[in-house]
Amino acid sequence: MGDSDRIPVGIIGASGYGGVQLVRLLLDHPRVEIAYLGGDSSAGRPYADLYPHLGHRFPQAVEPIDLDAIAARCEIVFLGLPHGLAYELVPGLLERGCRVFDLSADYRFQNLDDYTAAYSIDRRDREVAASAVYGLPELYRGRIEETRLVGCPGCYPTASLLALAPLLKQGLIDLETVVIDAKSGTSGSGRKAKIGMLLAEADSTVTAYGVAGHRHTPEIEQLCSELAGQEMRVQFTPHLMPMVRGMLATVYAKLRDPGLVREDLLTIYSVFYRSSPFVRVLPNGIYPQTKWAATTNSCYLGVEVDPRTGRAIVMSAIDNLIKGQSGQAIQCMNLAMGWEETLGLPLLGFYP
Amino acid sequence: MGDSDRIPVGIIGASGYGGVQLVRLLLDHPRVEIAYLGGDSSAGRPYADLYPHLGHRFPQAVEPIDLDAIAARCEIVFLGLPHGLAYELVPGLLERGCRVFDLSADYRFQNLDDYTAAYSIDRRDREVAASAVYGLPELYRGRIEETRLVGCPGCYPTASLLALAPLLKQGLIDLETVVIDAKSGTSGSGRKAKIGMLLAEADSTVTAYGVAGHRHTPEIEQLCSELAGQEMRVQFTPHLMPMVRGMLATVYAKLRDPGLVREDLLTIYSVFYRSSPFVRVLPNGIYPQTKWAATTNSCYLGVEVDPRTGRAIVMSAIDNLIKGQSGQAIQCMNLAMGWEETLGLPLLGFYP
Amino acid sequence: MGDSDRIPVGIIGASGYGGVQLVRLLLDHPRVEIAYLGGDSSAGRPYADLYPHLGHRFPQAVEPIDLDAIAARCEIVFLGLPHGLAYELVPGLLERGCRVFDLSADYRFQNLDDYTAAYSIDRRDREVAASAVYGLPELYRGRIEETRLVGCPGCYPTASLLALAPLLKQGLIDLETVVIDAKSGTSGSGRKAKIGMLLAEADSTVTAYGVAGHRHTPEIEQLCSELAGQEMRVQFTPHLMPMVRGMLATVYAKLRDPGLVREDLLTIYSVFYRSSPFVRVLPNGIYPQTKWAATTNSCYLGVEVDPRTGRAIVMSAIDNLIKGQSGQAIQCMNLAMGWEETLGLPLLGFYP
Amino acid sequence: MGDSDRIPVGIIGASGYGGVQLVRLLLDHPRVEIAYLGGDSSAGRPYADLYPHLGHRFPQAVEPIDLDAIAARCEIVFLGLPHGLAYELVPGLLERGCRVFDLSADYRFQNLDDYTAAYSIDRRDREVAASAVYGLPELYRGRIEETRLVGCPGCYPTASLLALAPLLKQGLIDLETVVIDAKSGTSGSGRKAKIGMLLAEADSTVTAYGVAGHRHTPEIEQLCSELAGQEMRVQFTPHLMPMVRGMLATVYAKLRDPGLVREDLLTIYSVFYRSSPFVRVLPNGIYPQTKWAATTNSCYLGVEVDPRTGRAIVMSAIDNLIKGQSGQAIQCMNLAMGWEETLGLPLLGFYP
Repeated sequence: MGDSDRIPVGIIGASGYGGVQLVRLLLDHPRVEIAYLGGDSSAGRPYADLYPHLGHRFPQAVEPIDLDAIAARCEIVFLGLPHGLAYELVPGLLERGCRVFDLSADYRFQNLDDYTAAYSIDRRDREVAASAVYGLPELYRGRIEETRLVGCPGCYPTASLLALAPLLKQGLIDLETVVIDAKSGTSGSGRKAKIGMLLAEADSTVTAYGVAGHRHTPEIEQLCSELAGQEMRVQFTPHLMPMVRGMLATVYAKLRDPGLVREDLLTIYSVFYRSSPFVRVLPNGIYPQTKWAATTNSCYLGVEVDPRTGRAIVMSAIDNLIKGQSGQAIQCMNLAMGWEETLGLPLLGFYP
Repeated sequence: MGDSDRIPVGIIGASGYGGVQLVRLLLDHPRVEIAYLGGDSSAGRPYADLYPHLGHRFPQAVEPIDLDAIAARCEIVFLGLPHGLAYELVPGLLERGCRVFDLSADYRFQNLDDYTAAYSIDRRDREVAASAVYGLPELYRGRIEETRLVGCPGCYPTASLLALAPLLKQGLIDLETVVIDAKSGTSGSGRKAKIGMLLAEADSTVTAYGVAGHRHTPEIEQLCSELAGQEMRVQFTPHLMPMVRGMLATVYAKLRDPGLVREDLLTIYSVFYRSSPFVRVLPNGIYPQTKWAATTNSCYLGVEVDPRTGRAIVMSAIDNLIKGQSGQAIQCMNLAMGWEETLGLPLLGFYP
Repeated sequence: MGDSDRIPVGIIGASGYGGVQLVRLLLDHPRVEIAYLGGDSSAGRPYADLYPHLGHRFPQAVEPIDLDAIAARCEIVFLGLPHGLAYELVPGLLERGCRVFDLSADYRFQNLDDYTAAYSIDRRDREVAASAVYGLPELYRGRIEETRLVGCPGCYPTASLLALAPLLKQGLIDLETVVIDAKSGTSGSGRKAKIGMLLAEADSTVTAYGVAGHRHTPEIEQLCSELAGQEMRVQFTPHLMPMVRGMLATVYAKLRDPGLVREDLLTIYSVFYRSSPFVRVLPNGIYPQTKWAATTNSCYLGVEVDPRTGRAIVMSAIDNLIKGQSGQAIQCMNLAMGWEETLGLPLLGFYP
Repeated sequence: MGDSDRIPVGIIGASGYGGVQLVRLLLDHPRVEIAYLGGDSSAGRPYADLYPHLGHRFPQAVEPIDLDAIAARCEIVFLGLPHGLAYELVPGLLERGCRVFDLSADYRFQNLDDYTAAYSIDRRDREVAASAVYGLPELYRGRIEETRLVGCPGCYPTASLLALAPLLKQGLIDLETVVIDAKSGTSGSGRKAKIGMLLAEADSTVTAYGVAGHRHTPEIEQLCSELAGQEMRVQFTPHLMPMVRGMLATVYAKLRDPGLVREDLLTIYSVFYRSSPFVRVLPNGIYPQTKWAATTNSCYLGVEVDPRTGRAIVMSAIDNLIKGQSGQAIQCMNLAMGWEETLGLPLLGFYP
């Protein structure tokens, strides 16, 4: 296929880690070409000033954000902006005929009151928000194929929901007992200069944060409730790991049927994800390493049952910047465009 | 005080990380001197072959293990051997009049059947084992002061029990709901050549291991049951962190009284540990970093309540090799000898 | 192109890090398929026992080493064995008509006496050894295209020689003044259980090793001498970095012409490598990060001149396991087979 | 000794890593007490807001900078300010009778023109600057004992000069051939929020910076020239390591006498440093790990000779924040006060 057959895509907000993953992955995607890359703070500068290693492949400058110009050149637009900025641009992009894949939280909530509670931002674009689809392909493949606006979930909801979905959908667990203990590399906090994220601070240490109040909790609960078919709450505790990328969610829940054993759950998970090319249910007794998933769009799931306590323990490992962010958005694009789901997305990592 | 007033101590099994911490800490302890350092595999070699940085302070060779010679020279003996070796030597040391502080699991179980189940080792020294005291000074200070044999707990039980003790002693939680999600640096697995512990394997990754079956679970449950006054089980999941030293236990449990708030628990914890110089209950909203505890014998506790779910979340950070191993043994020695509890033990780390 | 058009390749010795990179890269290579994967110690076991994350893509078992069987199934054979084992197998493979790409040191020396001096192994296959080509495509592209046996250089010679070649070929430096200070991730020492490579030992520390006597020195000197057109020596000092993968060689040499400035060297380097798709000469004042090269077959070069001292300082960053090992072998295969040099080889990394 | 006998010391500028090391070390120093801790940006806040792990030992607030108040309360003042701020305060402190130990570059230059060239700051306090002593006790013990103003060298000059001093003082090397390849943990860049020092950027990577133009070069050259007895230049290249603390300088120089062997140099180094309690010359064939020096004021030196090239290779490992900063200042204080040189300073690290 010649380059002239490639679909032109745009990226708004490419200075952060989500943005650079998008650039990296889209440069190797066989069906698209990057026709526009824009941002506010870095407009006018060569993108290679921000990421010198890409200079030979992507010598372009960052452009200012101009919706008319973007829509004139791009069929598809990815937004890699911080929360609270995307919703100012998205309605205009949709009106101009673009398909939109937003990486922020702005279009992940069906109920904007929940968004406002979590992000302290008042919103009036209720109609647009209601038209958005939650971009977790393993759960909402059909909806994604039919929409023009996808709100792509981030790393914590992705890792948590892929671990919990089979249990919730099948009604296997006591909904009061869900504990999600999540561990993330520091790249999840973005490319912003913060003292707490300096290597000198964050290396050789582990800590929890946002305990009992992290703003991804309502997003996770919204989806869990939908899967379970009733309102439910989870105990979600994120932890910071001394590493760059990767996320592990260790999920605990009491099984309703104390007779279920590990092999039962493995069968249930394998069936549930049999059409999901990026989800790998690991064999008996193998637990995932986050490193297996690094630089890929894959999710590795390990499943265990403790017969002494009657709990299921499910471990879910992803690359927080790919399956937890940019790769997920591309996976959604592939589906929305009718392409093969795995197109241009790495399945295998580079171990060690 | 002259060196002639120092009490002679011996170390059996000093080739591992627990051993070298003991050597390091005892060299700076004002009331003792290392009179013997022995081991099997490295007998005859200078200790500095194993740890060159100590060569100028500790030029001695490793000696063979000879109980008569040890007892003739040492009043106090620390054992830093792998599980299943200490119990062959301890009765002989006690008979010869030594005080013994064992770092292995051999004397941590009041019921040897539990030990046998966890370690697959049959034991006949029931009388000696029954005379041992569990060396967690914050809970058993009085018993330690009166015994000649201490079985010192390792890192996972120490971090877990210091987090749980106030809740269990006060009867504040539903005993069915305890989840301990523990995160450890790789030094916890010792100085043995294992592929899985190579930097190339264990760096930049996180994984769980021993899920639903780690052998520290029965030890933790034995102590929890004693504190709670009834048999109970915990869900304990250890994880490997990409760092050398440090441990965080994140403990979850449902509160019996839904009206309890964070401030209540902080008061309860502060009172509970008011006479424990190594336990630091952190102020409102501060959660511990493992790095704060690194190279110290301190334990930092962070306490949180989630009013939405009714759970307490307690985070406990220690240095797995000091408060979780060697420092704890020295703390026990200080108590058993009637010395100040903090003697020769670091309280403050070197941040960052 | 259908799978039936793919060339069958074999890998002997795939249990190590070089091997698993080969498997990973060849699985995605569009012109080959892995028809055989063999080894001694792991024969009979599923390869996924060694690398579980590859299980879904490569479910095959490791086969025993049988030259007839290999040659019957494979046109091309890669050897990923430790030094001193390949030369027992290679003559047999060549006789049976296979093309051979050897990742060990066995076929890197034109003079086997140098090999014997460095590796203490006596060899009699002088004729075969003399027919081997040194597999550094940037220097010996033409020779590689015409041979059936390539001895692929490892990470230290690759990083060092790519930094030095333009200076040596153009006669720009005083040959007595070359200092190579190299920094490597620990994966370079392989997947062998060694205490010194444990994360607990090798993390958070830096050290030199093999000072004034590393066995890659004669290999580097052999090639430098060939490039310079006269016998020369280098000062080569490898250092261990607290990271998994990546290598930086910082090379120092006095310029013969004190009037040369940085811009002159940048031009010389750009011209020298203008036909080398994997070498990226960085712009003025940009120095390479090893992370830019990680998971790629690229080499990033930074060039500096110190007018105060008259020295050139050249920094060369590669992925030690790809451009420094497996990727280089595949690059050689691409050339030897007449395929595009970059086929199946990653050019761009996943930053951060 | 009662607390009333302790000498009151003040710290100006304690928000950074140098400052918190000073606080940590001085809290355990047996002859002083911290009577004042001040800073501009954090004045009024509890110091524990910056470093919560110290809260229980140091509950005081940061005070504003007021020279009269400081001098009224403190006999000794340490300054932990960025370069270019100390010299505004130091003359006032000296006039008011304080002894001053400055951790910045402001008083390290005998010739203020060199300072101005390196730091682009014009200075008029030539007389005060001329009275300052360079605070490297291993070289200038006598001068430090007799001064009231010490300009303490930082990590790069300390590691480099301790490696080079015996060679230069004895006239053993060709002065044109000195190459210093230095490797530093990222804490050396301080507790400032910079994108390049984020864990996500600086972990798992190695890079050079300041090549051929780092501003510590003139400081190192000033001292080298003094030691050599003639003007000389060095090639100094700093590198950033993916670790928090620790520094290794690998120093290369051609020996004038080609007959010198490693054992000769080891003898020379051992004699040179025989009265230096913090310098450890390692035995034959042992090279230093930076981790051995971590959390100590010690410097480990490894010495090698390459008979093939006639070069000496000396490796020098320190903790960049202690021997390379705060500990050095305390060592200077001990000498200036006539106390034992090692008082309150850690000699042994906590390996691993």
